[in-house]
Amino acid sequence: MAQAAYYEGNHVIRQGRGKMIEPGPGQVQLRVSHCGICGTDLHIYHGAMDARVKMPLVMGHEMSATVQRIGDGVSDVMPGDKVVVMPLAPCDDCPACHAGHSHICHNLNFLGIDTPGAFQSYWTVPAYTLHKLPNQLSLKHGALIEPLAVAAHDVRLAGVKAGDQVVVLGGGPIGMLVALVAKHYGAEVLVSEINPFRVEIARNLGLAAINPTDTDLTKLVMEETDSAGADIVFEVSGSQAGAAVMTELLRTRGLAVVVAIFGQKPELDLFRFFWRELRLQGVRVYESQDFTAAIELAASGALPLDDLITDIRPLSALKSGFEDMETGGRVMKILLEL
Amino acid sequence: MAQAAYYEGNHVIRQGRGKMIEPGPGQVQLRVSHCGICGTDLHIYHGAMDARVKMPLVMGHEMSATVQRIGDGVSDVMPGDKVVVMPLAPCDDCPACHAGHSHICHNLNFLGIDTPGAFQSYWTVPAYTLHKLPNQLSLKHGALIEPLAVAAHDVRLAGVKAGDQVVVLGGGPIGMLVALVAKHYGAEVLVSEINPFRVEIARNLGLAAINPTDTDLTKLVMEETDSAGADIVFEVSGSQAGAAVMTELLRTRGLAVVVAIFGQKPELDLFRFFWRELRLQGVRVYESQDFTAAIELAASGALPLDDLITDIRPLSALKSGFEDMETGGRVMKILLEL
Repeated sequence: MAQAAYYEGNHVIRQGRGKMIEPGPGQVQLRVSHCGICGTDLHIYHGAMDARVKMPLVMGHEMSATVQRIGDGVSDVMPGDKVVVMPLAPCDDCPACHAGHSHICHNLNFLGIDTPGAFQSYWTVPAYTLHKLPNQLSLKHGALIEPLAVAAHDVRLAGVKAGDQVVVLGGGPIGMLVALVAKHYGAEVLVSEINPFRVEIARNLGLAAINPTDTDLTKLVMEETDSAGADIVFEVSGSQAGAAVMTELLRTRGLAVVVAIFGQKPELDLFRFFWRELRLQGVRVYESQDFTAAIELAASGALPLDDLITDIRPLSALKSGFEDMETGGRVMKILLEL
Repeated sequence: MAQAAYYEGNHVIRQGRGKMIEPGPGQVQLRVSHCGICGTDLHIYHGAMDARVKMPLVMGHEMSATVQRIGDGVSDVMPGDKVVVMPLAPCDDCPACHAGHSHICHNLNFLGIDTPGAFQSYWTVPAYTLHKLPNQLSLKHGALIEPLAVAAHDVRLAGVKAGDQVVVLGGGPIGMLVALVAKHYGAEVLVSEINPFRVEIARNLGLAAINPTDTDLTKLVMEETDSAGADIVFEVSGSQAGAAVMTELLRTRGLAVVVAIFGQKPELDLFRFFWRELRLQGVRVYESQDFTAAIELAASGALPLDDLITDIRPLSALKSGFEDMETGGRVMKILLEL
């Protein structure tokens, strides 16, 4: 039977019957397979985005599916195809879209936030959002494509190249994926994370990782770079501490990449930006080529994706998943299986 | 007779006899012609850099001169040549120098700050710091080459191109020169400055300029860019207000250029950097090619340099020059003539 999880405001998740929406022209109905829980979903669950979302809301956007039915005019996929959704529906008529930056459209419809998402058995979406998965890529790993595309986008915009000294501040799922992708491209990567369980996961993933509460991060980076500093720092913690240390860590003309969503405006050492001619780049979501790169990377088997997935649970476990994420406990990426 | 102005700590300037130092091998003795007063000199005069400078200090680095004598091994200039000094002596053996960024050497000797400068009749400097002036460029305009090279560096690193919408926050001498150079390269430039006298000067220079205390800068920029925002904002005010407004003004992937020396760490809207994928670039001093560009630009006569020079005074007026700059009165660039 079709099921769905509905967010109904401040920490309330109702499990209920799912809808099956007939695909209109240019649309595709999907049978959802797996859907990961994202930090943004947690943020919504906390009520922090109630002004933006329409309730009851079906969240979920880190997903994989098989095509169930196709609407008129759809020719790129057919029933049975394994797919993922790039959950961005731009307006095509704002300054960002006109400038070729439709992924950060001023009026962006983010599927799973602004309109229904994938925490339901059947999901009807525009066909243009779909990327097909190759046969060798499992639907389980497919649910990691969306966050992996974030990492691919961030690493691409940062211009990471072989031999670069890279520091990743914050070892949640996105930080880990950024670190793995940067390392895959030949960078020397160090992850800094205050949660001991996450430090352990990072090391299990084959990443160099330290806990800055017991290791002097700046001293270590200076030792490892002959006092030059890091080429690139990815700020994925969203903290004042992260914003402060990133300017200390960078070499002359080094690049700070702001991946995290800062809820507060941090103090930033603009003198240091001047003094060392540092650069900073904000990065958000992904473009179609990043989905393509993420799919190729995942399908290649080069990344230890299984070690990122700490739990696979039924849809009914969405609320308990949020609760485990809140405690900062022994979870990394939780997938729900539908 | 050789004269010099000596900074002797906290607001004390002593006028005295100048030294004539024999040029050693690879050195050149200059007869200084003009030397502008820089904001950094004012900062030193206030005692703010007493921990760095050795007193008594001869300040001054925005200068022009004729070559008086040359030391052994000097062949690129000869007595009588009109020259300017690029006042940077790098160590050639630090990570910045090794990375090709010797202009921001970790152990930089800035002539006129760390060692004696040009507020004296005769100045002996390394020959490699010299750039020759073409005949058609006056020694008066030559004293503007150093700040003009700052502007050329900033505009070059920002990648300003024809048609770009550029906002300059802060209309002091550097802000004006940045605006003039950006406009010369075909950008649409708007200067924002709170001092009415400086707004008037900007307009006399042919620049569009507003006072943000009586014009809504963000609204104006959005109107003029069809709600897209500016391509590039140069932050030359060093203020929290400037750091706050620059993120509001920029289009998706727009660039904030930090030119100012921020004495305090401002709060910065890193969420906006994420949301619009904004970029930021710190810029400091100049490289040799920027001096070359500044000399060509000044010699071409394309810039209204005379309108930037509000005063030409004798060396003995250094202290009164500082006092006029402190009051934020009717001065822009003050040159001392030696």
